[in-house]
Amino acid sequence: MINIGLLGLGTVGSGVVEILKNRKDELKNITGQEIKVKKVLVKNINKERQVKLEKEALTDDFEQVLSDEEISIVVEVTGDLELSYKYITESLKSGKHVVTANKAVVSKYFEELSSLAAEKNLAFIYEASVGGGIPVLKPLREQLSLNEISEVQGILNGTCNYILTRMVNEGKGYDEILKIAQELGYAEADPTADVEGYDTQRKLRILATLSLQGKITEEDILLDGISSITSLDIDHIKNMDATVKLIAEASAYEDGFTAVVQPTIVKNSNYFANVNMAFNSVAFKGDNVGELKFYGPGAGKLPTANAVLSDVLDIVLDIYRKGNPLGEKVLKNYNEKIRGNYYLRISNANEEIVHSLRAIANNVLSLGSQPAILTDEIELSKLMEIITSFNIEKKDYFLARIIS
Amino acid sequence: MINIGLLGLGTVGSGVVEILKNRKDELKNITGQEIKVKKVLVKNINKERQVKLEKEALTDDFEQVLSDEEISIVVEVTGDLELSYKYITESLKSGKHVVTANKAVVSKYFEELSSLAAEKNLAFIYEASVGGGIPVLKPLREQLSLNEISEVQGILNGTCNYILTRMVNEGKGYDEILKIAQELGYAEADPTADVEGYDTQRKLRILATLSLQGKITEEDILLDGISSITSLDIDHIKNMDATVKLIAEASAYEDGFTAVVQPTIVKNSNYFANVNMAFNSVAFKGDNVGELKFYGPGAGKLPTANAVLSDVLDIVLDIYRKGNPLGEKVLKNYNEKIRGNYYLRISNANEEIVHSLRAIANNVLSLGSQPAILTDEIELSKLMEIITSFNIEKKDYFLARIIS
Repeated sequence: MINIGLLGLGTVGSGVVEILKNRKDELKNITGQEIKVKKVLVKNINKERQVKLEKEALTDDFEQVLSDEEISIVVEVTGDLELSYKYITESLKSGKHVVTANKAVVSKYFEELSSLAAEKNLAFIYEASVGGGIPVLKPLREQLSLNEISEVQGILNGTCNYILTRMVNEGKGYDEILKIAQELGYAEADPTADVEGYDTQRKLRILATLSLQGKITEEDILLDGISSITSLDIDHIKNMDATVKLIAEASAYEDGFTAVVQPTIVKNSNYFANVNMAFNSVAFKGDNVGELKFYGPGAGKLPTANAVLSDVLDIVLDIYRKGNPLGEKVLKNYNEKIRGNYYLRISNANEEIVHSLRAIANNVLSLGSQPAILTDEIELSKLMEIITSFNIEKKDYFLARIIS
Repeated sequence: MINIGLLGLGTVGSGVVEILKNRKDELKNITGQEIKVKKVLVKNINKERQVKLEKEALTDDFEQVLSDEEISIVVEVTGDLELSYKYITESLKSGKHVVTANKAVVSKYFEELSSLAAEKNLAFIYEASVGGGIPVLKPLREQLSLNEISEVQGILNGTCNYILTRMVNEGKGYDEILKIAQELGYAEADPTADVEGYDTQRKLRILATLSLQGKITEEDILLDGISSITSLDIDHIKNMDATVKLIAEASAYEDGFTAVVQPTIVKNSNYFANVNMAFNSVAFKGDNVGELKFYGPGAGKLPTANAVLSDVLDIVLDIYRKGNPLGEKVLKNYNEKIRGNYYLRISNANEEIVHSLRAIANNVLSLGSQPAILTDEIELSKLMEIITSFNIEKKDYFLARIIS
């Protein structure tokens, strides 16, 4: 019998219980043992729940999980950053393997938790934290043994991709589609973490640190979200035979890296153009394997629970990769070297702004009070300087890189 | 020290030696041991080779590999079907793990070799046999523990995809592009196995048998290749805002399956439309994880060698999945139930044929001696009956399913 301590019984936690129940026989066949959720940490043990569990399994006291010596694996799906840090640390310290779906805690305490687990010879794995249901961190780690990874790239946030896809497909405005997304459960009541790119930034921090084998923090990543995009932008983009995605990208650059999360206009013939709605995709390049891309559901109860349980299964079968996966390279931040071709639209522009825009334009898409241009190849830092000199608010411009 | 017996020193074999050499330190760090190619079976030990190996490593006698008790892993990359069957069987029987890149031998002897390996508690793994460098069989097997897989689909042959992509991009004819592909090494001198779909059929046999957990043989798979496609077809397809791919697909159907390899017209907004040139992609659907898709190089020296070595590494680290991955379901073949919307073009058609075509057409794209139509939804078996009744040769028509 393998006993699990489940921390959190929200969407993902319920999914974990459900899959374990539905696949009970198959899992017993494969592992030779029953996998049981012995204790579940919840805030309110008296709350009515859909999920069927023995009443005595529920507890609101983490110590009950921690002190249970029969529990060998802790599955952390609380969603709370600082509490989960405490739970994960204490679990590892008392000899329990840890699986988590929480990208925020992995991102913030990546080095510390990875070291602690390695030191204790325990698993600390987090497949569900990036790309939801897509198996991507495990293949990435495996490819690292045989490859130098030079680039990692992805559409990592289902909410943004859902909003952008529907804006492009339906020609409706940002606010209208955001409202629909909230009603359908694709966006939260407070959508900030998703639409401003913080969620994507955390996931890139994890992918980049693993891929480039050196510490790349959230602060190391240039960030721009999607909330200032308008129907006019979408019209211009469609006329370019293209679509728009929030793309995260980190690349090796000389003795360091560049790392950025930003709206990106991709030609319709580009692979990422057909990654739509709430789907995610992660791509990376290795010197031997070449370019690999992984596509699947970026979130959702069962896909995320499935990813959590593949980690659990690897621990039960003792086939997870041992040791600390993080590298010790000291990498220099070369974000000031990032350059490309950009789309820029300004709202409520005055004549002076229009004049400055024309000076850097390779192509003018619209003029008047909402000028939009395509730049020649230019350094992003230089372009940001120009935008800053306009003294306008973030909500009054939309900037996107263009890739073919 | 881990000693490998390498069977074959062609493209893939040389790649294996090269990566092992370049990644020597990293592999030693990860495994704690040196991985050495101790013996290499070749046809001619005196042939000049690019690859650097100790002279005494080469042998033309398989017994030298088999009887070497220090060799624990045999890597079979000869490319020869019956010889490789013999080598693999004998290696497993004498207690050696086996890794192969040979889809033909896996396809033909899948059940037998899987049983033998399981019985001997040895690894028999073949990541490189499907999808070249893409890690797909391992993730598929892992998802099988937690999911019922209902469908597997893919672009599995780089040669066909290269030819079709260039025909669409450049508007040139089949023969001209085939010749270019041969000159550039994307197609073999005798391209039959690729362009007629046999290679794809073998790979689908492997994917389908794993996915649906019951025996699905090559003969169970309906097969059509790409060699009869013409520039006229490409013109019609482009006018449909679409492109064309050789797609392999197996689906669960009632108490059995359907399985087919055929040219498929995909709308430009479909995921597969942006899988171009020699790239491959494999997709499957699980009831928990949802839809996963994997993309990468379908062939090539280093990508294939990389896949072979990920298998080797899993054996060295003892983290490969134990047991027989094949299921024991008895699955009924429902290929006669396959139905869809099709594109059909006939060359040198007479009036009678044109008349029959109009009767099943939802849309007529061209008339005259080269009529082309789009059908209503129709059973493939019924459509084939109609085509057979025309009494024309395979080279004189092109049939493709249409998906959106």
